[in-house]
Amino acid sequence: MELDLIRRLSQPADTKVVLCVLDGLGGIQGPRGRTELEEANLVNLDRLAEAGCLGRTLPVGYGITPGSGPGHIALFGYDPLTYEIGRGALEATGIGFDLGPNDVAARGNLCDLDAEGRITDRRAGRLPTEETTRLCEQLRAIQFPGVEVFVEPVQDQRFVLVLRGEGLSEAIAETDPQREGVPPIEATPTAPEGERSAALVREWIVKAREILGGRERGNGVLLRGWSKRPEMPPFPELWKLRAAAVTVYPMYRGVAKLCGMTSIEGAHSFDEELALVKQHWDEFDFFFVHYKYTDSAGEDGDFRRKVEAINQFDAALPKLLELGPNVLVVTGDHSTPSVMAAHSFHPVPLLLWGDLVRSDHAHQFSEPACVQGELGTFPAKETLPIAFAHAGRLAKYGA
Amino acid sequence: MELDLIRRLSQPADTKVVLCVLDGLGGIQGPRGRTELEEANLVNLDRLAEAGCLGRTLPVGYGITPGSGPGHIALFGYDPLTYEIGRGALEATGIGFDLGPNDVAARGNLCDLDAEGRITDRRAGRLPTEETTRLCEQLRAIQFPGVEVFVEPVQDQRFVLVLRGEGLSEAIAETDPQREGVPPIEATPTAPEGERSAALVREWIVKAREILGGRERGNGVLLRGWSKRPEMPPFPELWKLRAAAVTVYPMYRGVAKLCGMTSIEGAHSFDEELALVKQHWDEFDFFFVHYKYTDSAGEDGDFRRKVEAINQFDAALPKLLELGPNVLVVTGDHSTPSVMAAHSFHPVPLLLWGDLVRSDHAHQFSEPACVQGELGTFPAKETLPIAFAHAGRLAKYGA
Repeated sequence: MELDLIRRLSQPADTKVVLCVLDGLGGIQGPRGRTELEEANLVNLDRLAEAGCLGRTLPVGYGITPGSGPGHIALFGYDPLTYEIGRGALEATGIGFDLGPNDVAARGNLCDLDAEGRITDRRAGRLPTEETTRLCEQLRAIQFPGVEVFVEPVQDQRFVLVLRGEGLSEAIAETDPQREGVPPIEATPTAPEGERSAALVREWIVKAREILGGRERGNGVLLRGWSKRPEMPPFPELWKLRAAAVTVYPMYRGVAKLCGMTSIEGAHSFDEELALVKQHWDEFDFFFVHYKYTDSAGEDGDFRRKVEAINQFDAALPKLLELGPNVLVVTGDHSTPSVMAAHSFHPVPLLLWGDLVRSDHAHQFSEPACVQGELGTFPAKETLPIAFAHAGRLAKYGA
Repeated sequence: MELDLIRRLSQPADTKVVLCVLDGLGGIQGPRGRTELEEANLVNLDRLAEAGCLGRTLPVGYGITPGSGPGHIALFGYDPLTYEIGRGALEATGIGFDLGPNDVAARGNLCDLDAEGRITDRRAGRLPTEETTRLCEQLRAIQFPGVEVFVEPVQDQRFVLVLRGEGLSEAIAETDPQREGVPPIEATPTAPEGERSAALVREWIVKAREILGGRERGNGVLLRGWSKRPEMPPFPELWKLRAAAVTVYPMYRGVAKLCGMTSIEGAHSFDEELALVKQHWDEFDFFFVHYKYTDSAGEDGDFRRKVEAINQFDAALPKLLELGPNVLVVTGDHSTPSVMAAHSFHPVPLLLWGDLVRSDHAHQFSEPACVQGELGTFPAKETLPIAFAHAGRLAKYGA
């Protein structure tokens, strides 16, 4: 649904909707000829499939493998091809950095340079996070008049550089040549409006080299993915409701916050996430609950562990159901088949449960069952319009 | 997928993709209550359906019966409503005429005119091809300074007229009134930029009448479908690969060449097509292989012969499989139900086989089985994005 139409048709209601995103949920058949979901021993999800209805989402489009950013952007109802989050903005978001409208952000790598300034290791031997943290603190000494500079450690040798100031532009060339044996590329402007920003970045790099110069490892920096935060129409305004995000990992919380959701923080496990949902149940109309472990297992190529992660979600589900949501959606942001050990382009299974559901008489929650589902295969950005319709939160179109 | 996004996400890979187009593959149930595909005795395709997955394509849109041009344009990944091949350009392409960027082409008919210049037979009694060929040679005597003129016979009374020169326009009215008893319409410009071209065409018609005037049959000409070749972004650049077209009939080769594929020529049968694919296997990453006989039988309303054509394709399939493609797609450019003896608007069955396929546990390749397939019903232009995704040739979108 177009955002303008959402704005026009959405209406308040006394109903609660929960969107559970099992990261990387979809799979393909493994060695025993069954997907992780087919192999799982589901008690609660199969029961919900029987009472509810099934379908499948296409996160971005046919044949397109989504990153986590676009996968979630789509589930939140925005067109992921229109609202694109640049790499720098996503990295900043991923560590919980609150990007403002005047910020430009880049992904940084500490790297090793030889005496001639050529890159000998793009990742500085994967410098320990603690050391990167210490170096980021030193790099904060670099200041410019009228521009705030943030240097934030991420993991291993990775960090985020954010410049905050009026009129800054993301039109800055990447300095990472993506190979070794050559010097970093100069941070030139990629469009006229990037001139001032690129000059600042060049100056920052010179000063960073002075600070890091005495070191053997991590004596240089590489910067790429300069980007601003996308201008997303805020979710609570679009839908006229109070929206909460409950996640363990900062990346997903970050994307939800870019969309204007309120992050409820403090969970370090799915159990703790569920406890937070319970604790704040009365304060919100919509909960986005993120479950990471399906994707981690899939990315590791661990079929068995992904099956286990699905089983554990299934076992925990009653805690959510006993809160009494009116509509519950269980789906993924993309597929991560264990046999591929990577995100994939396959459609994502989806289960919707609620009062107004039209049953498809399915008996289990699995990819093949979802092909036959009542909801069909649809763009992921239609997930919440469908869910909110089932919750009485979308008015009639036309008289 | 939009072409810009293809350009951005496509990546080289060490994989081979084969697209087999069984022309007019889809059918509707015949006298025994089964479609041609249901009636066929498939050995290899049913096995591939079990190991692969099924779906259906909409070539142009709901309810739209595609011609061969748009049917193939869509399968090659282009929007057939954006990249329209005019009738003249298609007719020229169909006889293997290499249309250049400065060419405008029309379909021509030799017709019969009476003493007052009124059309008595729009098709000149379906003049034999040999005679049309001889007359085309005579018509080549008509020349203009600075403009090359080509007159090429097609079949029966049909021919192609191509004007080649700087600044020529396709904005020329059709001269065929589509009925008899009236004179041909004058070739007036349909827009200001067509004035010069229309004047040339009027002059050409006057001179053609002088050359043909002494004859009883075929003493006049009708011209329609003035068009230029569409500007298609070249397929090999979009996808970063080497693409080959293997066809028996010039029309399909012509459309593939308009899209920038390399035509491997010389086949007079499907066996010879397969031999050419084998011979050139190492030189290309993608093969479009055209199989005509399903459509010819369907167009003739010969249900039994269409079933036989499908069976013969099935029997020949192992020769293709033993080359070791990574991804194989078997589908049609449109449906040609034998009981209609014509192209139709019905969705087209599709089978995709390859390593990364998610199985839908299908047991046979048929229209009803395809309705239940993993790939769902999707626009034909998404066929290759899906196939290339399965071949590792599309990078992730977003981080």
